[in-house]
Amino acid sequence: MTNITASITDITVLTADQFLKNWQAHRGLSRRVLAAFPEKQLFEFSIGGMRTYSHLAGEMIGLASAGINGAATGKWETTPELDHFNDKVQLSTKAQFLEAWDEVTEQIDHLWPQISAERFNETEAAFGQYPNTIINTLIYLLDNEIHHRGQGYVYLRALGIEPPAFWDR
Amino acid sequence: MTNITASITDITVLTADQFLKNWQAHRGLSRRVLAAFPEKQLFEFSIGGMRTYSHLAGEMIGLASAGINGAATGKWETTPELDHFNDKVQLSTKAQFLEAWDEVTEQIDHLWPQISAERFNETEAAFGQYPNTIINTLIYLLDNEIHHRGQGYVYLRALGIEPPAFWDR
Repeated sequence: MTNITASITDITVLTADQFLKNWQAHRGLSRRVLAAFPEKQLFEFSIGGMRTYSHLAGEMIGLASAGINGAATGKWETTPELDHFNDKVQLSTKAQFLEAWDEVTEQIDHLWPQISAERFNETEAAFGQYPNTIINTLIYLLDNEIHHRGQGYVYLRALGIEPPAFWDR
Repeated sequence: MTNITASITDITVLTADQFLKNWQAHRGLSRRVLAAFPEKQLFEFSIGGMRTYSHLAGEMIGLASAGINGAATGKWETTPELDHFNDKVQLSTKAQFLEAWDEVTEQIDHLWPQISAERFNETEAAFGQYPNTIINTLIYLLDNEIHHRGQGYVYLRALGIEPPAFWDR
């Protein structure tokens, strides 16, 4: 058994293209969840003392932008400038959120091919704070988006709104 | 630009070992979320007409077990026998859920090395229903777990219970 375990070590299960495709498909679903919120509730509704969905979506936008910029250039900054730690999001309408969302979608497609093969396994302090490999940081921020989007599903259900289907990506 | 895009196609960003490690780390967090529910609310509490967390956790256990069995053997069956489509979960106490959870954790570690390199990219009807590559099916069920666990966070918050930290895996 030891040999079998050892031999699996270097099996490729995911390529850069596949990761990008999965990431952008998730972001497409997240955008539809954002769009499903009524304007008022996006900024005011929450459950159990949690953050509003505007804050959660602001975090998604900021982390994705800082994440792709950091992965491609080493500068963990957002474009346009956003607070990627979500407590000072400057966007104040749903339309602005959707516009920022689409801008980051383009950033990702534009910057992705600039990440070298070696870069994915380099260790760096992501967002200036969290030492990890680039690929693990990217996985982390995608997982974080899925996590908060799942919370958005509960908010929508509590508001009597049918969310987009999870499997439809 | 076309050349750069094309050259990234085959970059490995994730190996089988890394996927397994990430999957099991997520499952460890999901187990702590499950354990954080009070016995009664696990089976009775929900928001907005959604399923109780016992149903969501039952789905996680069933899909993980059927997923690893299917990936390794081609038989999309659960061990022990569970309804992996969650509406007829036979477990009736939190202790039983945690026990089944741990059993599946061992199954995954045991069966994972039996998946060949070629197998990850084979297309098969996962769970007898959804044609996809094995790796995409595994990614899907992990994402599904993160999604529903995020919903569990809202349930816990609504119950006044502090959930385990998302980043602590």
